[in-house]
Amino acid sequence: MIKGLKRLNGGVTAVPGVKAAGIHCGIKKKGLDLALILCERDATAAGVFTSNQVQAAPVRFSRQQIHSGKIRAIVANSGNANACTGLQGDRDARKMAEATASNLGIAAERVLVASTGVIGKRLPMKCILTATPSLVKELRRNGGKKAAEAIMTTDRWPKLSALRWESAGDSVTIGGIAKGSGMIRPQMATMLCFLATDAYARPGVLQKILRETVENSFNRITVDGDMSTNDCVFLLATGEKGAAPEIAERNSFGRQFKEALLEVCLDLAKMIVRDGEGATKFLEVNVRGTPSDAEAKMVGMAIANSPLVKTALFGEDPNWGRILAAAGNAGVRFNPDRVDLSIGKFYLVRQGEPLPTSQEAKAQKLMRNRNIEVHIHLHHGSGEAVVWASDLSTEYVRINASYRS
Amino acid sequence: MIKGLKRLNGGVTAVPGVKAAGIHCGIKKKGLDLALILCERDATAAGVFTSNQVQAAPVRFSRQQIHSGKIRAIVANSGNANACTGLQGDRDARKMAEATASNLGIAAERVLVASTGVIGKRLPMKCILTATPSLVKELRRNGGKKAAEAIMTTDRWPKLSALRWESAGDSVTIGGIAKGSGMIRPQMATMLCFLATDAYARPGVLQKILRETVENSFNRITVDGDMSTNDCVFLLATGEKGAAPEIAERNSFGRQFKEALLEVCLDLAKMIVRDGEGATKFLEVNVRGTPSDAEAKMVGMAIANSPLVKTALFGEDPNWGRILAAAGNAGVRFNPDRVDLSIGKFYLVRQGEPLPTSQEAKAQKLMRNRNIEVHIHLHHGSGEAVVWASDLSTEYVRINASYRS
Repeated sequence: MIKGLKRLNGGVTAVPGVKAAGIHCGIKKKGLDLALILCERDATAAGVFTSNQVQAAPVRFSRQQIHSGKIRAIVANSGNANACTGLQGDRDARKMAEATASNLGIAAERVLVASTGVIGKRLPMKCILTATPSLVKELRRNGGKKAAEAIMTTDRWPKLSALRWESAGDSVTIGGIAKGSGMIRPQMATMLCFLATDAYARPGVLQKILRETVENSFNRITVDGDMSTNDCVFLLATGEKGAAPEIAERNSFGRQFKEALLEVCLDLAKMIVRDGEGATKFLEVNVRGTPSDAEAKMVGMAIANSPLVKTALFGEDPNWGRILAAAGNAGVRFNPDRVDLSIGKFYLVRQGEPLPTSQEAKAQKLMRNRNIEVHIHLHHGSGEAVVWASDLSTEYVRINASYRS
Repeated sequence: MIKGLKRLNGGVTAVPGVKAAGIHCGIKKKGLDLALILCERDATAAGVFTSNQVQAAPVRFSRQQIHSGKIRAIVANSGNANACTGLQGDRDARKMAEATASNLGIAAERVLVASTGVIGKRLPMKCILTATPSLVKELRRNGGKKAAEAIMTTDRWPKLSALRWESAGDSVTIGGIAKGSGMIRPQMATMLCFLATDAYARPGVLQKILRETVENSFNRITVDGDMSTNDCVFLLATGEKGAAPEIAERNSFGRQFKEALLEVCLDLAKMIVRDGEGATKFLEVNVRGTPSDAEAKMVGMAIANSPLVKTALFGEDPNWGRILAAAGNAGVRFNPDRVDLSIGKFYLVRQGEPLPTSQEAKAQKLMRNRNIEVHIHLHHGSGEAVVWASDLSTEYVRINASYRS
């Protein structure tokens, strides 16, 4: 744990030298729908993108842009994903970057683009291009919350997180905003996250740290197991304070930075789960005793993605049989006769043998809580992982079955 | 197509020399819950079992029994899965086989056992042992339907299928019964299928044919993507008519046999999907243009298991964006700019470009049907596969969220 770590408001704009804005430009009928984040100077940039074979135009565009390693701004819209829009979609993503750059007076190579919302429909470029000058004028040192609101689709609340700590006499800040998987009208469970820090890093190091951190945070949550065509996480390191130590993988500052970045990302990731569609529960699955950490994660995700586990959670049923069966489907070998399983502190299975039903009655009471912890120990190695998930409710089905507008 | 192929009633007992029975023994409050299938003489046996790491006691027991390759009888109960019941569960499965064998006057090594129902509770052995003599007395040449009823959990109807054809002047029959994934009160989506034929086969050949057939039938259906601890498929080849040709992999009779067996299994598999929990739709996903057939199946299953696709199906929304996004998550590489996608005969995407919305309006009408066909061509090879699935309805969630009794 880093000493003197403080939580801040403002998300991405808690970072010195970072401004943001969020406005309504008319893609959505109401609410903010266009966001901008600007760094005072060129920042080192890293990005992690969806691994879906079908990638939205802004994902294809930003993936190329980020190769330069130097970025000044991120422009993003909600209400339209610009996905499955063919070659026109690629042109529209580029135009969005160019308009933003020209209004900011910077090179178009320095702008990343992201979109979230309805799939298969052309971006209403007229709304976006007309509104870009106002968007730039709206940039504020405290604009993080508005930017977070402008990337919401069916999220019920904006998602911001920021941390600051002292390192060798200097203060360092990491801040971010995110949006989660709301899919009422839009067609995709897009996850977007924009992070900034005033620390300094070289592109290769930053990319490696971001990839690892995403693997241990956003890649450990699941609402419904579906992966969007638009998912992306960007991290801009401004290196504002020349005095700040460089983030290196092996120095102590690098270790601090990784720890704080993980905390910000976990914070945002858990907000996404809590705001999952129709979610009534927040499940934490702790897996231990697998040959490797990766296998522990596989077991955790198999449990967290099982419709039978998720509906039992919604029904407040401590159905350990479904949890065991889901674990058995993870593609990880283990001996079921050695498994321990508990819900909260109440063991239901020890060494593969079910315990008396009085234990289950106690666990049953716990299931009424909003937050539920499941612990499963496979006694087949020292691997471990934690994953987080929401339940599967009738509301989820209703939301996702409703016709598109 | 085999010439003169006829459908028969009776399921597994459509096969000469096979009797069956189904009775109520008291595991369930009401309805038949104990089934028996008997061959007049030793049959060559093959079995395919769940690949879940957590396997019910009857699965562990029958897997060992079948090694001998010679089986006379299958005894099965519904209402209790005898899964996650520790060492006592293993003893109970063995006792069930021994009691059946002694009442039939055959060796216990010749009996397979299967169970389906609630998990984590001991089998009520007293009910079973007391009822075994009556079960044996109930054996009938037309008992297939009663046996099919006795393995139902929350299935809404019994599942039987049988085919007969002439081969070199001899008539050959394949028949089977199955139960699907109803999980209202029981905790598992168990799939059981018991098949018989009067053709003759050596154990190794029969096992290979059964494994291939299961891969192309039961392993291509999905209700909710969860795999049970109790799934099993048994095939008994009685070789009753000494005159019947031997099933060999490469002879023409072997090819006929495989074709007919696949048809019986597909028949039963589709019945399971149609009777899926809360199912209101029957989706057939046709995938073409992958490097291999296996990859086509991966794409098909990714589509068929996507909660977003399944809820759109329930909502009668021709949401091709979700179908494309699910395909992109299958772990199969393809170029989205070459994809064609249609619902029924209406193309919605050609070479990655969405077609005019008038096409979508036509597809929308099709979505009101109970049977929906999706065709997706990736233009990346000559692999192909068809998979079948039900939709995800609010009723599914309600069923699976309800408390255990």
